[in-house]
Parts: sequence; C-alpha cells; structure tokens
Amino acid sequence: MKKRVGIVGYGNLGKGVELAIEKTGDLELVAIFSRRDPETMVGQLPTSVFQHIDDLNNFQNDIDVLILCGGSRTDLPEQGPLFAKDFHTVDSFDTHAKIPEYFAAVDGVAKQSGHLSLISTGWDPGLFSIHRVLGEALLPDGMTHTFWGPGLSQGHSDAVRRIPGVAQGVQYTLPSESALMQVRSGENPELEAFEKHVRECYIVLEEGADADTVRNLIVTMPDYFADYRTEVHFITAGELERDHGKMPHGGIVIRNGSTGTEDQHIQQIEFQLKLESNAEFTASVLVAYARAVAVLAKQGQTGAVTVFDIPLRYLSPTPYSELLKHYL
Amino acid sequence: MKKRVGIVGYGNLGKGVELAIEKTGDLELVAIFSRRDPETMVGQLPTSVFQHIDDLNNFQNDIDVLILCGGSRTDLPEQGPLFAKDFHTVDSFDTHAKIPEYFAAVDGVAKQSGHLSLISTGWDPGLFSIHRVLGEALLPDGMTHTFWGPGLSQGHSDAVRRIPGVAQGVQYTLPSESALMQVRSGENPELEAFEKHVRECYIVLEEGADADTVRNLIVTMPDYFADYRTEVHFITAGELERDHGKMPHGGIVIRNGSTGTEDQHIQQIEFQLKLESNAEFTASVLVAYARAVAVLAKQGQTGAVTVFDIPLRYLSPTPYSELLKHYL
Repeated sequence: MKKRVGIVGYGNLGKGVELAIEKTGDLELVAIFSRRDPETMVGQLPTSVFQHIDDLNNFQNDIDVLILCGGSRTDLPEQGPLFAKDFHTVDSFDTHAKIPEYFAAVDGVAKQSGHLSLISTGWDPGLFSIHRVLGEALLPDGMTHTFWGPGLSQGHSDAVRRIPGVAQGVQYTLPSESALMQVRSGENPELEAFEKHVRECYIVLEEGADADTVRNLIVTMPDYFADYRTEVHFITAGELERDHGKMPHGGIVIRNGSTGTEDQHIQQIEFQLKLESNAEFTASVLVAYARAVAVLAKQGQTGAVTVFDIPLRYLSPTPYSELLKHYL
Repeated sequence: MKKRVGIVGYGNLGKGVELAIEKTGDLELVAIFSRRDPETMVGQLPTSVFQHIDDLNNFQNDIDVLILCGGSRTDLPEQGPLFAKDFHTVDSFDTHAKIPEYFAAVDGVAKQSGHLSLISTGWDPGLFSIHRVLGEALLPDGMTHTFWGPGLSQGHSDAVRRIPGVAQGVQYTLPSESALMQVRSGENPELEAFEKHVRECYIVLEEGADADTVRNLIVTMPDYFADYRTEVHFITAGELERDHGKMPHGGIVIRNGSTGTEDQHIQQIEFQLKLESNAEFTASVLVAYARAVAVLAKQGQTGAVTVFDIPLRYLSPTPYSELLKHYL
C-alpha cells in the first residue's frame, strides 16, 4: 500500500512537494491544505485536490505523514506543535538560531500525542548539516568550511527591492573564487562569511531614479551588503524577465582534516549542490524524509527528530536486500 | 568513561586505526591483536600494545568494539563471523559482489550471540554507498555517476609488477576529464567504467628489459588495462621513490536528477573525496563507526548492520543538544 501524504501550504515549496510526490512510486498525495478557499485554488496538476486547513482534522485516518510547507517566521512555529497533536509531520524549519526551541516545542507535543515529527530538513538545515557532522566525526583534527551559492537570495532580493528608486531587483550570493580555491587546496583559513562570498545585484531602476544613489544605498546597507564585496548591475525589465526568472541555489561544504602522526596527510571531503530550483530540491528532500517518517512512525517511534536520527535506508523505497546487493 | 577499542591486524589499515583513535577524545585503544609474535611487533607509537590473536578471548570484558583490519579476500570471511561470537565488531569488507553473503554469515552469528557487527564501511563501500542511496532517494528521476581517483590502485599496481621486465611500478586511476565535465554539466551519459577513467602506470624496468615489450604487455592486459586509455611512463627507481611513495586516492559520486513538470529543473548532488592516504582515511571512517557501534550495542541492537542503518548522530562524540544548536 502506498504511503499517504498531505501537504499544508501551497507556495513554491508546497508545489514542489506535490511534484516530487509524483516522481515516487510509493507515495500518494491525499490533499493539499490551505488557509485559502479551496474553490478558488488553482492546481498545477490536473490531479491537485484542495481542502481547507480547518478541515484537516477530518483526515487523521487518511494521512500517514503531513508535510508542512509554511514559512519559518510565522507559520511553522505555530503549525509544527499544533499539527504534531494529530499527525506525523515533516517540516523545513530553517531559522537556525531557534531550532533548539522549536525542537523542544514540537517534541513535547509529539511525545505526548504519540506522533513522530521530523523538523528542519531540506538542504541547509538538512543535507549540509549532515555533512558538517559527518566531516567532523570522520576527521576530528580539521576544519569545516561552508560556502553558499551561486544562488538567488530571497531575503537579500527583498532588501534591495525596498530601496527607493528600485523597481525590481534580484540578488545572487556566490562563493568567492579565491576563498574556495584556498580551501580546496587543503588550507584551513579562518574566514568570515563576507570574506567567503560575493554579492551580485541585478537592478531595474524606477523611472527617473539615480543609479549612483541606488548603488550607494545598496553597497552600504548594514548587515546585508556593507561588509561584502558587492557588485550592482543595472538592467532593463526585459532583461530581468529573460535572464533572472529562475531560483537557482546551492553551496558547498568542505571538511579538510589531517590524519597520521609526524607524516600528516591532508584528507578532503567535499559535498556540493547545484540546484536549478531551490524550492523543488528542498521539496524533494522533504518527500524522502516523509517516507522515512511514515516507516519509523509505524515502528512506534515518537517525538521530534532531525536528519541526525534517520538511518539512510528509510529514505529509500528500495528493499534493504537490494541496497546491500547493488548500492553498498 | 571512554569507549574501549581493540584492533585486529596491523597492516596499513590497522596502523591507520591506531592513529585515528589517537585523534579522538572519547575512544581508547586496549590492544592490537595479530597472528605475529607480540614480542617481535614494532609499534608506530610509544604506547602501542600488542597481543597474540589467540589471546583475544581473554579480552571479552575489556573491549567494547573490535575493529577488524584484515583483508577481504581471506581474513574477513573467516574473522567476521568468528569474532562476532564474542565481540561487537566493525569491518571494511569490500568485495562488493560477496557483501550479501558476508552480511548473512555475520548476521547469523551476531544475532545468536547478541552482538552488533557493522560490516563493509570505509569510503567505497561506505561513504560512496551512502551517497548512491541518498542521491537516488532524493532525486528518483535521474542517474548516479561514480568516478574513482586520482588514486593509487593496489590491485592494478600488483598486476603491472607481475609483468616480466618490470622491476617496480605503480598504477593510478584518474577520472576522465571529458567524462567528468559532461556529467558535471548535468548530462546523464551511459558510460562504462573504462570510458570514465584513465589509467596511468609509472614503471621502473629491470636491467635489460625492453620498454616497448613491457608497454605492450601492460596496455593489452585483459580486464585490467585492455579496455582503458592507458598511459605508461618509464622512470628511474629514484624517481619512483621520490614521487610515488604515497597512497593517494579518492573519487566522486554525482547524482543528476530532474524535478518539476514541463519546466524541468536539473538538480545536482556531488560528493567528492581527495585523500592523501587511502588507508588512514578508511581507518578514520572505521573509527567513527566503531563509536556508533559501541553506543547502539549498549542500547541492545544486535545482528549485522551497514552504513545504511546508522543514524548520523552516533558517529559523532558531540552531544545531541550541541548538534541541534551548532550543526543543524
């Protein structure tokens, strides 16, 4: 029998989850739940089925795992603990500083209600977290370096768009080539984020706005740009639409460690993601972890868990005997 | 209390394990067990303690995990099931085709004796296996590409050294640059191993041997070289000693997958290892998994397991609360 999945939220992430479920052979989508009126929702697939979020409780017996696709700022802090009362859940809560607090809130509810909730998966937090722990566990005498990009940064794009004179704009974060080369050569420089990354802005000016004024407001913006090497390119609305419509992202986690005694050997572990669609990839990660949660919940596991708790075999639909034979 | 580890076998891998344990703060080495007379053994550390392998059974109460560092051809098929009777074990059994059979043999004994045995860890099988399963689980609509090298290939070096006229020699396997570029660009070519790799031999001839004859014997050797682009370089014994004394290795696992509907997005996951010492890195992996086995065995888990069964948190000595706070 297929594992039955529900989706809460139908933004980019929820849409990505819907498509990722289609790519599997062992999961089926029961319905997409939203605060919006189901009658007004337009699905991206002919099969999209919508329900109002207030009716979610009627689906307790029809859903094996609920994937929460809301935002980390306001949706998940409320929905995570709330839905863990009645469902096994998976989410991508990504406010790093608040993860312990969020974990505790979800864990308390899920343990009491007998549900399993996997929080904060995706690629960072998620796959990158896995590689930060793995690298250090394997090579304790070393250093981990994380680079982000090349990628569209939502928060920074919003920030440039709020600047007076900016009609439209996008911001990309890129690894600094020189910093990346240094780390890949096996060195362990102590670099701040602003030394490891470059910021590129593509801006469409409002009619009559002054380019130099806008550029200056961007490159001096505290927290967002002031510390970084920032490049500002002015383009037309047509160019923006043609060249900057995608949401690429990615990044690199490198662990450089030493083994041996006097004769030290440099060992390097590198994990890299190059994503043409950030949301769709995050969605794919959520769906694989939803599979694992369905299996582990059936085995009786409860409470909040993270990517650090899940044996890899449960992410895969492939039988264990096949994993041993063809993948090990 | 520190986790108490024993090592069986004191070749390159066993020596690497001894050094890797030194790099941890939570593991201690009890003794190194060998078939050789302990009196004649020379340790690489002042603290090296040797015991005869026949005395292993006297250490049942002193060892939490035994790391088996013998070879996959003759040592492990015998020692794996044998030592699982009395110890929790970790090994790097790497004869891919025989893994299911070896798993069954160890599992039978370990389940009956109440021990936990993690088999076939290292980097391939091991970390590469993890990434083959992870890539496919996350991006089911795609293809996985494994490249090996640049690395010293022990089996192929042995093969060239058996050729008449060869005094000494080493063989390196390298990813083919063109194949790697094609895969990194997001394409999914169906390539055989010999199309993805290049073989480089560095040969010291015996006095009076004919270079062309030797070259021809190498490049036409069935299974080993005949299908590959093979380069043979003749060097002096001095050059061999100066430039080819290390045992580098590594490789790359790339998953290219598509997400989305009509508007397909290419998503790429790449995992790369660049190792200056193959044996020391494999040893580091064994030691991290030994830590996990010690913890999970204490929780009562028994039988044979693999890298697919181990939640990542147990590879790390860091408390879970810290993992949540600083690594997730």
